[in-house]
Amino acid sequence: MIKVGIVGGTGYTGVELLRLLAQHPAVEIVAITSRGDAGSAVSSMFPSLRGRVGLKFEDPAVANLKACDAVFFATPNGVAMQQAPELLDTGVRVIDLAADFRLADIAVWEKWYGMQHTSPEWVAKAVYGLPEVNRAAIRDARLVANPGCYPTAVQLGFMPLVEAGLVDPGYLIADAKSGVSGAGRKAEVSSLFSEAADNFKAYAVPGHRHLPEIRQGLSRIAGHPVGLTFVPHLTPLIRGIHATLYARITGEADFQSIYEKRYADEPFVDVMPPKSHPETRSVRAANLCRIAIHRPQGGDTLVVLSVIDNLVKGAAGQAVQNMNIMFGFSETEGLWQLPVLP
Amino acid sequence: MIKVGIVGGTGYTGVELLRLLAQHPAVEIVAITSRGDAGSAVSSMFPSLRGRVGLKFEDPAVANLKACDAVFFATPNGVAMQQAPELLDTGVRVIDLAADFRLADIAVWEKWYGMQHTSPEWVAKAVYGLPEVNRAAIRDARLVANPGCYPTAVQLGFMPLVEAGLVDPGYLIADAKSGVSGAGRKAEVSSLFSEAADNFKAYAVPGHRHLPEIRQGLSRIAGHPVGLTFVPHLTPLIRGIHATLYARITGEADFQSIYEKRYADEPFVDVMPPKSHPETRSVRAANLCRIAIHRPQGGDTLVVLSVIDNLVKGAAGQAVQNMNIMFGFSETEGLWQLPVLP
Amino acid sequence: MIKVGIVGGTGYTGVELLRLLAQHPAVEIVAITSRGDAGSAVSSMFPSLRGRVGLKFEDPAVANLKACDAVFFATPNGVAMQQAPELLDTGVRVIDLAADFRLADIAVWEKWYGMQHTSPEWVAKAVYGLPEVNRAAIRDARLVANPGCYPTAVQLGFMPLVEAGLVDPGYLIADAKSGVSGAGRKAEVSSLFSEAADNFKAYAVPGHRHLPEIRQGLSRIAGHPVGLTFVPHLTPLIRGIHATLYARITGEADFQSIYEKRYADEPFVDVMPPKSHPETRSVRAANLCRIAIHRPQGGDTLVVLSVIDNLVKGAAGQAVQNMNIMFGFSETEGLWQLPVLP
Amino acid sequence: MIKVGIVGGTGYTGVELLRLLAQHPAVEIVAITSRGDAGSAVSSMFPSLRGRVGLKFEDPAVANLKACDAVFFATPNGVAMQQAPELLDTGVRVIDLAADFRLADIAVWEKWYGMQHTSPEWVAKAVYGLPEVNRAAIRDARLVANPGCYPTAVQLGFMPLVEAGLVDPGYLIADAKSGVSGAGRKAEVSSLFSEAADNFKAYAVPGHRHLPEIRQGLSRIAGHPVGLTFVPHLTPLIRGIHATLYARITGEADFQSIYEKRYADEPFVDVMPPKSHPETRSVRAANLCRIAIHRPQGGDTLVVLSVIDNLVKGAAGQAVQNMNIMFGFSETEGLWQLPVLP
Repeated sequence: MIKVGIVGGTGYTGVELLRLLAQHPAVEIVAITSRGDAGSAVSSMFPSLRGRVGLKFEDPAVANLKACDAVFFATPNGVAMQQAPELLDTGVRVIDLAADFRLADIAVWEKWYGMQHTSPEWVAKAVYGLPEVNRAAIRDARLVANPGCYPTAVQLGFMPLVEAGLVDPGYLIADAKSGVSGAGRKAEVSSLFSEAADNFKAYAVPGHRHLPEIRQGLSRIAGHPVGLTFVPHLTPLIRGIHATLYARITGEADFQSIYEKRYADEPFVDVMPPKSHPETRSVRAANLCRIAIHRPQGGDTLVVLSVIDNLVKGAAGQAVQNMNIMFGFSETEGLWQLPVLP
Repeated sequence: MIKVGIVGGTGYTGVELLRLLAQHPAVEIVAITSRGDAGSAVSSMFPSLRGRVGLKFEDPAVANLKACDAVFFATPNGVAMQQAPELLDTGVRVIDLAADFRLADIAVWEKWYGMQHTSPEWVAKAVYGLPEVNRAAIRDARLVANPGCYPTAVQLGFMPLVEAGLVDPGYLIADAKSGVSGAGRKAEVSSLFSEAADNFKAYAVPGHRHLPEIRQGLSRIAGHPVGLTFVPHLTPLIRGIHATLYARITGEADFQSIYEKRYADEPFVDVMPPKSHPETRSVRAANLCRIAIHRPQGGDTLVVLSVIDNLVKGAAGQAVQNMNIMFGFSETEGLWQLPVLP
Repeated sequence: MIKVGIVGGTGYTGVELLRLLAQHPAVEIVAITSRGDAGSAVSSMFPSLRGRVGLKFEDPAVANLKACDAVFFATPNGVAMQQAPELLDTGVRVIDLAADFRLADIAVWEKWYGMQHTSPEWVAKAVYGLPEVNRAAIRDARLVANPGCYPTAVQLGFMPLVEAGLVDPGYLIADAKSGVSGAGRKAEVSSLFSEAADNFKAYAVPGHRHLPEIRQGLSRIAGHPVGLTFVPHLTPLIRGIHATLYARITGEADFQSIYEKRYADEPFVDVMPPKSHPETRSVRAANLCRIAIHRPQGGDTLVVLSVIDNLVKGAAGQAVQNMNIMFGFSETEGLWQLPVLP
Repeated sequence: MIKVGIVGGTGYTGVELLRLLAQHPAVEIVAITSRGDAGSAVSSMFPSLRGRVGLKFEDPAVANLKACDAVFFATPNGVAMQQAPELLDTGVRVIDLAADFRLADIAVWEKWYGMQHTSPEWVAKAVYGLPEVNRAAIRDARLVANPGCYPTAVQLGFMPLVEAGLVDPGYLIADAKSGVSGAGRKAEVSSLFSEAADNFKAYAVPGHRHLPEIRQGLSRIAGHPVGLTFVPHLTPLIRGIHATLYARITGEADFQSIYEKRYADEPFVDVMPPKSHPETRSVRAANLCRIAIHRPQGGDTLVVLSVIDNLVKGAAGQAVQNMNIMFGFSETEGLWQLPVLP
């Protein structure tokens, strides 16, 4: 039984962490902070937790986070880099669900996130928390940078191809579609029901913050820089990411078999049979990535379909998976709920 | 560990039973039948179950249901009354999620369901499976008639008032709203996305089959016939029922307190604080009924709000709750998942 | 050809006014104001108007509204009472889509709207703009108080019964369901897609601002105070209100016929055949109210179903209808578009 | 004033044709057929048309279609090729909204549509009804093959690039997303609300019937065969197609300007300003295609975003546009309604 804390628990990744951790048999949630809602019961903001989570939000200044074994940051970008180092220095292990420690190149980070990084030394020590790539390093990490939602779906989808060197790495295309919860629980006109329902649009085509993160990940896997066009879209879903990936084949192989072998031992990646079309709802509320591989009309373009729940494998679930690895629990502990369908 | 079978597993109550039973620690699912899909893997119809449910659909004629301790019927109305008696006679305990055994008055049943009842003797032996009313009888039941979705929400909402005799029992109004999954996984134009999305309508106002079931339940509780107007509506939700109940007060009391006391020991009924507005999503995918009581402007009309997930507390979850009671398991075993929000 | 202006054009009633007025053959839109967006093109905020509406938002201080024949206020409550009198004094005719001039009793208004009324003299002169009740007065009105969305659906639904004196006026129930656009284009967490989609809830059960407006309207029609319980609900629709109305019958009559006669000459009220269930989408984007009357099981409770598009007959369309009456145009001019279905 | 008939009026393209034609000032609808619903009022199936369309469905055998100037076929594939020739021979001009006359190569058609073509001679005479390409030929056409929904969005999006020869024609990618109404008003499980809502998936990745149609169109424009990967997706929208198009640049140019010039005189194609992200709702219920061009990070991949309403510019609206051209009406007659937003 470990003690965990959550910094910034009023957003969607926060409430999803609460849902998962409150059902985790080896975890006791001892503190959850919110500057704005300090003093109010968590279950009055999130009635789904009534009778099951008795905590109140605490002011970050008074919450005893240093007594925790692990602290999750479910805060906006730029908070963890300021508050995590003090905890890390006392030996608390930290999992940051924001972007503060994801990009190794500080200059790139500062350009895309529009602020100065206050903790570059911890960027160097942080481990990028994609277990399917970095499991061993995560085990010993003091600080895990939990991947973004799009980067999880796109990297898991492209990885076997890029590792195998069978596609043109200079011309990858990721057409990705996200549910609206990916924009967070922020009061913004563009996320209103009457704006986002019965509507579909691309956004940030000139450049999205997840682009450098995906590029960094795929370039590390490839061993050299990759060229990537990344177009995100807003879809009238609450949860779910569907990445449709295109790559030009440069060498022949049994692509289905390459994927099946690559993920054979992964508990949370499901390579579907040939000709499958994974649906976002087939992973709804579960820590899963389902992938299908197509080669339309036997041509030279490979199409990979990759789906996750952006709040689970794309955020809170992956964070718990990382925690399981860090603390030596079974990797599936507390993450074995079946998807909710319909 | 008990062995269970499911007859008719291709609908929404079937897949929801599978989701819940596959995660139940004391249950082994040994057979699931479907005449039309015999031979195909359950997980190819419902990819959400890939890797977790290895069964194939079997033809009802060959499935060894008699080796089961319990069999669930998730079939259309009229099937269980024909197939359950043979199983019951061999000692298998049966939970019918359809309407075959819900109404004690055979003539009323035949009028509303438009067919002749083939097993009136088992109607007499069946126990109406609303645990909050009939827990003791359910324990020893050989055959449980699992309540309808609307009847669950409406009866739990009205029950404390009707028991206490504090409202005019001749003039109850239930304005109920259901998600589209309540119509089942049947190919019908009226349930198409393009018909039901961004649309709201009442239906069956002249008379809905759940009306006599609710009337029977409330009349039993009251000890005399009640008068009820019941108007169901179709709402663009996948899951969820919201019942808004109106009753004219005939005697003063602390209504909030009456509800809190009535449900104090019920694990799956949550009486919310005064002035609450329960949301359907606060019970999504969970076996819960949340209730709030209002007396607008201190007038003589009481308004009760009652929400459930129609597929869980309104169907499969309640069926598993009944199974837990019948077999002496903890009532919450396998039903303790937190609601999925957002 | 008349010149019209719109004060506050960045909300949903504003853009809907623009859609209707831009297609009205007798209207020239000469000014639209927005303090926050002054200087930017209307079509850059609302791309649906590209190529058709060339206006820019102007600062209210500089817009030449006094040159208009009519000015619409599509502003938050409390704005028109401050800005309309100056225009009215110069002879401009005003239609206020907010609540400032709807309630004759200033004290009641101030209680429900939480502010002091700054223009009680204009409240006395204003005409409540429900054409089916007040057509003659609207014709000569200098200031029209355009009704609220719920009040339109509920009053049109109850009116024939209340006029005929055939139901118990002390015990009316209005269970109303609204699409999310009714909450406006304001950045609020409760209106986010991820909060409102796949969710259903009642709100403001203790008391909603439209309650006194409906009560005032029905009491005027009845000639004495009526008792009303009004429960609004938030539904995952963009547009649409469905009011389900309950009344206890006190005298026998052919209710269907009463409704048909009452609305025989109304171009925008459609009494449907017996046993109908009007759908909100059957009036989507059109200035229509469709009504059906039921008497379930021949009992003593009448159920009336009334649907409108909250942005059209519940707001902008009704405002244009009022304008047509005020300026002697055909009442259907510019309002004859067919509903959009599916 | 011309007389028109509609064969097969019970689907979504049928009701959309009715909505548009009933408001067209130069058209009288004289007949609408449906084998299954002959004798019933159109407005009882589509209450949105109550009071405005007085027709009844007629049996195709008795309907006097030969008295029409123009007949629209809104039938399943394979019907028009059997029934249209007789009408054509009597001088009636025909617009087929299905696929029967879209593909010039009969063998290709028969392979993708799985039936034998019964009217190859009329395939040779048919004009492909994309006005932005074929306006002159449409003017004199006796038979117009109205384009598919995806083909309209994709061809309009790629056309200026392919005409200008500035991208690699061997490696075009069209990632397209459609609302569910594109699947028609057919009772199918996959189109149910509870299947399609809150869900996103690709489908027909191995090959979709619109692929050869798009290829044929772009190859004609290019003057040589093009290579295209086409991946359609099902999105929880009622109406709307969003095509995200990718092409590798082979020559430098001002791409924005090329698009603006190409479509400068087109009333129904809107080239948006640089950096725009067209939304499907910005064309909802209107005969419009909006397009934006991006070159992310100045790289060698061009991204074109193209949106239409699949039932309007993708079906019924384009059919009316073709009719306007064929009969010498103003091309925008009856098609000038503003989009419905929100």
